[in-house]
Amino acid sequence: MKRPLEPSAEARGRVVGVTDGVFAIALTLIVLEIRVPSHEAVHSEGELLAAIAALAPRFLTYALSFLTLTIFWFGQQAQHGLIAKSDRRLATLNLCFLAFIALLPFSTDLLADFLKFRIAVVVYWLNLLMLGVTLLASWWYAEKNGFLAEGVDAETKRTVYLRIVKAQVLWAVGTALCLISPLLSIAFILLVQLIYAAAPRGSLLRKLIG
Amino acid sequence: MKRPLEPSAEARGRVVGVTDGVFAIALTLIVLEIRVPSHEAVHSEGELLAAIAALAPRFLTYALSFLTLTIFWFGQQAQHGLIAKSDRRLATLNLCFLAFIALLPFSTDLLADFLKFRIAVVVYWLNLLMLGVTLLASWWYAEKNGFLAEGVDAETKRTVYLRIVKAQVLWAVGTALCLISPLLSIAFILLVQLIYAAAPRGSLLRKLIG
Amino acid sequence: MKRPLEPSAEARGRVVGVTDGVFAIALTLIVLEIRVPSHEAVHSEGELLAAIAALAPRFLTYALSFLTLTIFWFGQQAQHGLIAKSDRRLATLNLCFLAFIALLPFSTDLLADFLKFRIAVVVYWLNLLMLGVTLLASWWYAEKNGFLAEGVDAETKRTVYLRIVKAQVLWAVGTALCLISPLLSIAFILLVQLIYAAAPRGSLLRKLIG
Amino acid sequence: MKRPLEPSAEARGRVVGVTDGVFAIALTLIVLEIRVPSHEAVHSEGELLAAIAALAPRFLTYALSFLTLTIFWFGQQAQHGLIAKSDRRLATLNLCFLAFIALLPFSTDLLADFLKFRIAVVVYWLNLLMLGVTLLASWWYAEKNGFLAEGVDAETKRTVYLRIVKAQVLWAVGTALCLISPLLSIAFILLVQLIYAAAPRGSLLRKLIG
Repeated sequence: MKRPLEPSAEARGRVVGVTDGVFAIALTLIVLEIRVPSHEAVHSEGELLAAIAALAPRFLTYALSFLTLTIFWFGQQAQHGLIAKSDRRLATLNLCFLAFIALLPFSTDLLADFLKFRIAVVVYWLNLLMLGVTLLASWWYAEKNGFLAEGVDAETKRTVYLRIVKAQVLWAVGTALCLISPLLSIAFILLVQLIYAAAPRGSLLRKLIG
Repeated sequence: MKRPLEPSAEARGRVVGVTDGVFAIALTLIVLEIRVPSHEAVHSEGELLAAIAALAPRFLTYALSFLTLTIFWFGQQAQHGLIAKSDRRLATLNLCFLAFIALLPFSTDLLADFLKFRIAVVVYWLNLLMLGVTLLASWWYAEKNGFLAEGVDAETKRTVYLRIVKAQVLWAVGTALCLISPLLSIAFILLVQLIYAAAPRGSLLRKLIG
Repeated sequence: MKRPLEPSAEARGRVVGVTDGVFAIALTLIVLEIRVPSHEAVHSEGELLAAIAALAPRFLTYALSFLTLTIFWFGQQAQHGLIAKSDRRLATLNLCFLAFIALLPFSTDLLADFLKFRIAVVVYWLNLLMLGVTLLASWWYAEKNGFLAEGVDAETKRTVYLRIVKAQVLWAVGTALCLISPLLSIAFILLVQLIYAAAPRGSLLRKLIG
Repeated sequence: MKRPLEPSAEARGRVVGVTDGVFAIALTLIVLEIRVPSHEAVHSEGELLAAIAALAPRFLTYALSFLTLTIFWFGQQAQHGLIAKSDRRLATLNLCFLAFIALLPFSTDLLADFLKFRIAVVVYWLNLLMLGVTLLASWWYAEKNGFLAEGVDAETKRTVYLRIVKAQVLWAVGTALCLISPLLSIAFILLVQLIYAAAPRGSLLRKLIG
């Protein structure tokens, strides 16, 4: 007898489909806020160059959010690669994670518009925090309900938890720096994302941040 | 001999592809209406905090629509998991369902903009109603034409019907509450969606709403 | 020895992925033009109802474009189901088809904004025409290069050609009606799309339009 | 024992999913800038025709970007078809490539708005350059780490490199022409894209541009 929405490999496939769709859209939406300079304000090559240069904060926050999306895409993928099947509840947790991915373009725009405001940094951090919380909840739920793939041992389980927690600690530290200066916060968080995205595995930097 | 568009498993796969695409876009579009406060109106941290707090209704209706999309994503998936193949007509019914999913960001924005207007609640409800109608029609058509997977028994068939009808009754009741107050309607519908999305299967609450 | 971009089943799969993505986006984009009434202009339930009623032409053209997208989605799928593999050139023809699918929200908006202008009808028709031309070219190219699946006989080949041509003839007739009245054109085209999407196969209406 | 994010075929599949999503969105976004003429400015069929004709530069740059997206979609696909598996670093390179694909609608709009400005041509070229650089880096990394599929011989490897380099040389030459006239640059680049997309393999034109 077949029942609707039993835990299955197909349900897992659907989650992957929606996830990659939301990430593709989020990656593209953050670019939409990089607006072409208005024709009225530009009358010479010099003015156009200046207008494009004035977009620099947008490109900076685009790079930041692009890196953040990359890191969470891998985070979701790292988990999902170790999960063999999905039920409705696990899929709901995954959709909650996606809801905060979908909010990232908003947080990013807020940051780009209010680079020197602490509140903007805090909102961005809350977004990062909720992404971590939903990832952590998914992993905890999948483990508790026996949805993990065979061959996932205790050490791997711990690694997944540790990675999420370490990243969150770093972002919390970065956010706390906004007490000194919001720009310092952004620089710190950008540096962390860069190391996650690009530092060679096994390198000193990578070991430091986990 | 091969004929174009015979009922097939590939047709079923294409429907899944477009469905997940539309859901991914709808999930992201409803966020687009959460606009970053204008730079001109904000001169201090306090003003920025107030401007973000003023976005609260948007976040509320975002949460509402996110839950609604989640519920219908599972609804579509629950059906589709029990359907073995699809012909052109069934795919058309599915696309009609998607047409109303695509309208959900509009209904949501309308609700967020006109929180205290009964018409906005009624339009939102009509959207929910049409989603139920198209789901019901798909299931009825698939059953009548023998597209259901093997092992789908009479009880499962009835369960699928009952779930759709029960949810519609609850939403109709919620909408009727707008005769008292539109905000009461929204609170009631939000509560229903929360229970569907998060209440443990077998819990009292879940049994109450079916 | 492996060469880049040899005709393959994977190339066919990628075309399907991009196609379903573009259709999902187009289906959602045409809704974006249905804008929530401005808060300033609405002070009572009656005014909100009137403002929503004023959106009627948008809903009409949304329905029209939704039906059109449905028809071409099936058109592309009917062809693709009979094609076993794809090379770069066939994929390019498919992307050209998608370029005109992506233009459909523009043509639709133009029609909705200028319901009583012949030029708007002609632009919409040109879009439909180019969709037919690219579909026809794909089929002709796939047939000529032996990319059709086994078991596709001469009659099926002819059927595919005939369907495209018949639909184009009907749309051309519908467009010609704009010499009498643009609204008559739109009504005629809408009727044709409705019959394609919903009339039972084998019914008199269906036989009439092929 | 299973470790998170080991090089795998599934990781490769996820990259394809996100890639096709971003391309589908980019293809559709460049159309969004083709805006329907304002109702206020149009009172007769003649004025509507004139307003649509005034959109010609938009259609030109749409065609240009569509061709460019097509070429890079095939570029990515040509590489990916020869790569058997993907690790996190290769996927990151692919996402960097996608970040520049997502920027293409911006560069295109800039070009359409400032057709006669050299800076706009240079920005467009920088976008093309970065797309080439990220593709080149992906290929180099996949080759160095043994991720290529079996049967990829030295000649095929060289072909992939050569194609990227030749296209970049042509675009650099085209961009240099903006010293004479930006419109000449655009015409030259458009011609190159047309030949890549449509000239028969083995034809004289194709041999000339490699």
